Amino acid sequence: MPLNPAFASLTQRLGKGTGSGLLTGWVGLPDPLVAGMVATEPFDSVVLDMQHGFVDLHSVVQGIAQVALAGKPALVRIPVGQFATASRVLDAGAAGVIAPMVNSAADARALVSFTKYPPLGERSWGPAVALNVCGLSAPEYLAQANALTATIAMVETRAALAAIDEILAVDGIDGVLVGPGDLSIALSDGKSVNPMAAEVDSALAHVAQRCKAHGKAACTFVTTGAKGADVIRMGYDFVSLGTDVMQLRAGANAFIGACKAG
Amino acid sequence: MPLNPAFASLTQRLGKGTGSGLLTGWVGLPDPLVAGMVATEPFDSVVLDMQHGFVDLHSVVQGIAQVALAGKPALVRIPVGQFATASRVLDAGAAGVIAPMVNSAADARALVSFTKYPPLGERSWGPAVALNVCGLSAPEYLAQANALTATIAMVETRAALAAIDEILAVDGIDGVLVGPGDLSIALSDGKSVNPMAAEVDSALAHVAQRCKAHGKAACTFVTTGAKGADVIRMGYDFVSLGTDVMQLRAGANAFIGACKAG
Amino acid sequence: MPLNPAFASLTQRLGKGTGSGLLTGWVGLPDPLVAGMVATEPFDSVVLDMQHGFVDLHSVVQGIAQVALAGKPALVRIPVGQFATASRVLDAGAAGVIAPMVNSAADARALVSFTKYPPLGERSWGPAVALNVCGLSAPEYLAQANALTATIAMVETRAALAAIDEILAVDGIDGVLVGPGDLSIALSDGKSVNPMAAEVDSALAHVAQRCKAHGKAACTFVTTGAKGADVIRMGYDFVSLGTDVMQLRAGANAFIGACKAG
Amino acid sequence: MPLNPAFASLTQRLGKGTGSGLLTGWVGLPDPLVAGMVATEPFDSVVLDMQHGFVDLHSVVQGIAQVALAGKPALVRIPVGQFATASRVLDAGAAGVIAPMVNSAADARALVSFTKYPPLGERSWGPAVALNVCGLSAPEYLAQANALTATIAMVETRAALAAIDEILAVDGIDGVLVGPGDLSIALSDGKSVNPMAAEVDSALAHVAQRCKAHGKAACTFVTTGAKGADVIRMGYDFVSLGTDVMQLRAGANAFIGACKAG
Amino acid sequence: MPLNPAFASLTQRLGKGTGSGLLTGWVGLPDPLVAGMVATEPFDSVVLDMQHGFVDLHSVVQGIAQVALAGKPALVRIPVGQFATASRVLDAGAAGVIAPMVNSAADARALVSFTKYPPLGERSWGPAVALNVCGLSAPEYLAQANALTATIAMVETRAALAAIDEILAVDGIDGVLVGPGDLSIALSDGKSVNPMAAEVDSALAHVAQRCKAHGKAACTFVTTGAKGADVIRMGYDFVSLGTDVMQLRAGANAFIGACKAG
Amino acid sequence: MPLNPAFASLTQRLGKGTGSGLLTGWVGLPDPLVAGMVATEPFDSVVLDMQHGFVDLHSVVQGIAQVALAGKPALVRIPVGQFATASRVLDAGAAGVIAPMVNSAADARALVSFTKYPPLGERSWGPAVALNVCGLSAPEYLAQANALTATIAMVETRAALAAIDEILAVDGIDGVLVGPGDLSIALSDGKSVNPMAAEVDSALAHVAQRCKAHGKAACTFVTTGAKGADVIRMGYDFVSLGTDVMQLRAGANAFIGACKAG
Ligand SMILES: [Mg+2]
Ligand SMILES: [Mg+2]
Ligand SMILES: [Mg+2]
Ligand SMILES: [Mg+2]
Ligand SMILES: [Mg+2]
Ligand SMILES: [Mg+2]
Repeated sequence: MPLNPAFASLTQRLGKGTGSGLLTGWVGLPDPLVAGMVATEPFDSVVLDMQHGFVDLHSVVQGIAQVALAGKPALVRIPVGQFATASRVLDAGAAGVIAPMVNSAADARALVSFTKYPPLGERSWGPAVALNVCGLSAPEYLAQANALTATIAMVETRAALAAIDEILAVDGIDGVLVGPGDLSIALSDGKSVNPMAAEVDSALAHVAQRCKAHGKAACTFVTTGAKGADVIRMGYDFVSLGTDVMQLRAGANAFIGACKAG
Repeated sequence: MPLNPAFASLTQRLGKGTGSGLLTGWVGLPDPLVAGMVATEPFDSVVLDMQHGFVDLHSVVQGIAQVALAGKPALVRIPVGQFATASRVLDAGAAGVIAPMVNSAADARALVSFTKYPPLGERSWGPAVALNVCGLSAPEYLAQANALTATIAMVETRAALAAIDEILAVDGIDGVLVGPGDLSIALSDGKSVNPMAAEVDSALAHVAQRCKAHGKAACTFVTTGAKGADVIRMGYDFVSLGTDVMQLRAGANAFIGACKAG
Repeated sequence: MPLNPAFASLTQRLGKGTGSGLLTGWVGLPDPLVAGMVATEPFDSVVLDMQHGFVDLHSVVQGIAQVALAGKPALVRIPVGQFATASRVLDAGAAGVIAPMVNSAADARALVSFTKYPPLGERSWGPAVALNVCGLSAPEYLAQANALTATIAMVETRAALAAIDEILAVDGIDGVLVGPGDLSIALSDGKSVNPMAAEVDSALAHVAQRCKAHGKAACTFVTTGAKGADVIRMGYDFVSLGTDVMQLRAGANAFIGACKAG
Repeated sequence: MPLNPAFASLTQRLGKGTGSGLLTGWVGLPDPLVAGMVATEPFDSVVLDMQHGFVDLHSVVQGIAQVALAGKPALVRIPVGQFATASRVLDAGAAGVIAPMVNSAADARALVSFTKYPPLGERSWGPAVALNVCGLSAPEYLAQANALTATIAMVETRAALAAIDEILAVDGIDGVLVGPGDLSIALSDGKSVNPMAAEVDSALAHVAQRCKAHGKAACTFVTTGAKGADVIRMGYDFVSLGTDVMQLRAGANAFIGACKAG
Repeated sequence: MPLNPAFASLTQRLGKGTGSGLLTGWVGLPDPLVAGMVATEPFDSVVLDMQHGFVDLHSVVQGIAQVALAGKPALVRIPVGQFATASRVLDAGAAGVIAPMVNSAADARALVSFTKYPPLGERSWGPAVALNVCGLSAPEYLAQANALTATIAMVETRAALAAIDEILAVDGIDGVLVGPGDLSIALSDGKSVNPMAAEVDSALAHVAQRCKAHGKAACTFVTTGAKGADVIRMGYDFVSLGTDVMQLRAGANAFIGACKAG
Repeated sequence: MPLNPAFASLTQRLGKGTGSGLLTGWVGLPDPLVAGMVATEPFDSVVLDMQHGFVDLHSVVQGIAQVALAGKPALVRIPVGQFATASRVLDAGAAGVIAPMVNSAADARALVSFTKYPPLGERSWGPAVALNVCGLSAPEYLAQANALTATIAMVETRAALAAIDEILAVDGIDGVLVGPGDLSIALSDGKSVNPMAAEVDSALAHVAQRCKAHGKAACTFVTTGAKGADVIRMGYDFVSLGTDVMQLRAGANAFIGACKAG
């Protein structure tokens, strides 16, 4: 089989701090059909969330197939520090991995050791399912996987902000994703969760600028569509527009509201 | 435990052709969390769909718990003609059963034989899980279950419309639910699926009137909120406002649209 | 592999109305480990319940392996009238099938058509998993399966009692199982569920006598151990001593009671 | 999305008794990855088996996505007589349904009533997942589904052979699939299972000839590759080359044999 | 929704070394219905065991709903050292986390970093499901979660006993749970497992006294009801009365014993 | 129950670098039936792969039962560094654990701490399911488990080769398994994956010699049967002959090839 264009599209289209503005769905409900339905909407990709969502490895394997059926690449957010899981989801055919709470260059290097094949990292060989997803032969996958899959580190603490240049400088880190909820908690010393806070905006602008300087992808998560437009103007390359649960709730409320108003 | 008010609320609040206008979510995605999320929105109940959704028995058992956690009753739509499944979902704690394609009084009686205990029907005894959901003891459940659970027959063919009075007259049938999609296909002889078609509206009005005459609940499904308001004005007692998939898609599009417009 | 003695033990040890008194566990909780745990207690077999339990086909396949691991045969109770499921659970390696609500010789013949190979019945060929469980080769299984697997019809209505001789006379029916809960509801015209009712006892005695006369197995379900001893004295060959849920509740209460009394 | 060529390829390439010789994998192991692996081998399609395999509805939904990911159409064999399940697997995106033990024109008409939309049948509307698989809009799917999905009746008893012309004459039946295992049991009056028996060959030849006469697809199942070549020469259009379990066993034995010989 | 009293009851009723004597069920069988059945018995809470039980994240999510349906709080025991899982189960609505093999203050601080929001710990934000369980809004949950959820460290080695004061002094540790089985192995240098051993009793008494001194909850696990009464008299606040498997076995044996004695 | 000979056979028959040549199946497809089917082929054991396969804990529990049903011991390969999972799979009844990427004596000691009871390691007590599999009582299992279960460290990097003597010298390490795929990548500095490379052969010979010297089992994985014979001649004690996916593909191709050639 030739290289599946859906699989390759993530890294081929992902900018480097210049505002490529890929839009992604974000799925925490574990049934693979949820990912499949979100993937048929006009998103560029779908993230399956193993940290705060309840997606498990089985959901990842089948969810990636559902997303691929819609011609889109799937990424997976792994739980905090569980880097061995990064290798497993890449084996399942993920086009990218998002790791939360990467607070230092050491964290970033540990992540890369599980997402990139030698000599860059120490990812172990076993992509039988990924080959089905990406369409490459085994030798082709070994040669191209490090470039075709994205390793994205989440920046969502004061420590991560302080280490942003060191993190971006780690070879094998393809971008960072600002987590505005946790960052707002961190910056308010636990007083509030507010992804729209001014200090979060300052951090977003700073990170975008540092990504551009390092030639790495600037990624983030927003909770309204309008904010999505804002961050793309800031130079963001990859933006998650809320979650499946937010979208389901919004849709349900729209139906109920229209009925009660009708 | 006392009678769980959530469980009892379905039949206690369900009108009889007078427009009680209960609003229900409708869930075909099998993960129980989908039902749980929909249930926390301002619906009066949630339907789990085993006919066109991919809900299986395990999803029903856990989905009912998720809906009950939100203080709402759950109903289950069973596959065509699989009346033994009606007994199983009642055993799981469903507050109501919706059976598709009930086209005659004979179909309706067969349905009742699986949803009501003797002497009204022939439902077999074994509600261990349902007792956990409804809070009744075994003797209480035997005495009250026929009244506390709703048996609803779908009217969605020419044959069903022709037999509407016979169906409504069957003892144990608590209401009918007009399926506007299949009805539109039937009334157009397979030419189109259009739940908004004028001939569907005529059928809706006729069924509402017959329900009122028989003192049975008038139920239907709509694909827009505005249509929900219309059918409640017609006298409908129970209205499904689209499905989980429609709501998820609507929500995703709202986010994307706001971003692109932003 | 030779014939697995665990698989064969059901029909080899099952009496014909003479009080062989095999004791069985009865499992409605779907996780296969529940069946596995019950199977390691001193029961002669384990029944997996697809009617009032929430066991599905996946649970049956894995539950049979768990029971076999304990050296016991597994039976499966199917949902009302879903005789095609009887073939599927036999394909999964069940040593017996219990069918609820068999109310006539016609019902019994329909059941047999799905549980016995031609010319006795019309069971379709495909026992790949069953061969793993029983240890026979395909030709051996075809030759022996009708004798090695038990087809048991539940007698639990007035109609079934009235037709008891016709049901027992059906070739391929290996025994009947009296369902005392449903029978008590039937005999009280829906007024009470009481497996200990006097009229149930009369029915139990009558059925035992008819089984002995026909040379077929007399089976039933009891809700106390003492009642189990009673029915064995009546001539019962196979007795379910409560369910997994009853046993779990009894055990939990014993711990709590001892603590509160301590 | 445009019509997915994988989905459409089944009916577009399936001959009518002229030996189109499509080769199919046949999967009874329920994990969707098995279907995905088989689908990447040079088969034209994959059948998911709910009769003798342990595939359930969840496996069907995810298995179809795995097969589609490989650019192939998926068919589903349903359990005996469970025609409502035929509608559900078509809703999941199956390109064809295979129904076992269709022994008369009445059986065939009952099957069609669940697989074809009005006016040909009475299939109920609800293809949300199928639309994701086939790429059509809802109106397009209503207009084209009857032609784009195949309804195949299994011929595997003396009764079915006797009624072959009546079955093939039923409008909506797109082909028949000879089941050589059950047919060999039937023709030997239960004495042996031998898909290579001479009387099975005669039946195969007769059915191929009748399919050609009726312009319907001739399908069968073989247990060796060489026999596959034989039946294609007889005029068969669709041939299953063993099952996943047979292939897994054959492969394991080839490895072991080579090691022991090495 | 208001704060769910079931969720809040764990920390509200849990004493601090004064013998509040809450009784808990302990569930290792993964099906959520097991947790639901245990929860309807007169326990104060239910623990779902991911260390020695086979509960996975999906079981946790659905098990918590089943326990909440019974009006009880659920706790989860995580595997050794997998602290990221502690965050995930709190996101699922657990009212408490029990971590095995906490052998030092450093272990305890690492645990707290995953169970408490900043500034006390570094738990990451994402409680969409927990909000459904506890009934709080997002800002309320951020403000109250550290107090409303319990972090309990298991003391079950010589090292942990030696460090008991340092562990109890860690801010964010709400109590300790003595594991008598592992402790007996440790104290016998691997020679025997005996939760009733005299040296375990001495340790139990010592830990109770230290908990009282630190104002933290004293928790343990017992294998007989009588021992439960003993430890409550020692000052224990939270006692697990055996496990689901022990209770199921006890119940099964009680039925069999009564039958054989009958 | 007596000690299950299947469970005990792994360590009883496993040589120590002398070429005992046990042949094992290797299963990465998560459905337990795959393990069951492979186990009935003439292998000595079956490995369930949680690193590159998609086997999860539920699959392990049920897969071990399927393998035990065939009279074989099951081993489990855990993900990189997830040693707590080693304890869980032993609790599930695994007869051995294989840990990937053990690159130092420190790694090996960390592994042993989770696989052996005190005083050798720190494995925590809770083998309720393992007792069902192995047939021992709790005291017997405590006394014998360290000897009856195998702890096998994978050697598949330059670092591991350099530390081979230190790794083999760790008390509690029962053998090492050479991973030829990753080793070929490591030895080629990421240029190629070739388990047949000459430098891999040299490493295989060296490891076999060191195992013999240390009296520990020499294990490896091969991708052809002929290579299996080679490594047994080198002194290997335990050899995996490809994977389930390789065998399934080989079998499918054999059927297709024979048909096309026919
Ligand atoms: Mg975050
Ligand atoms: Mg309809
Ligand atoms: Mg009954
Ligand atoms: Mg057949
Ligand atoms: Mg412990
Ligand atoms: Mg490796």
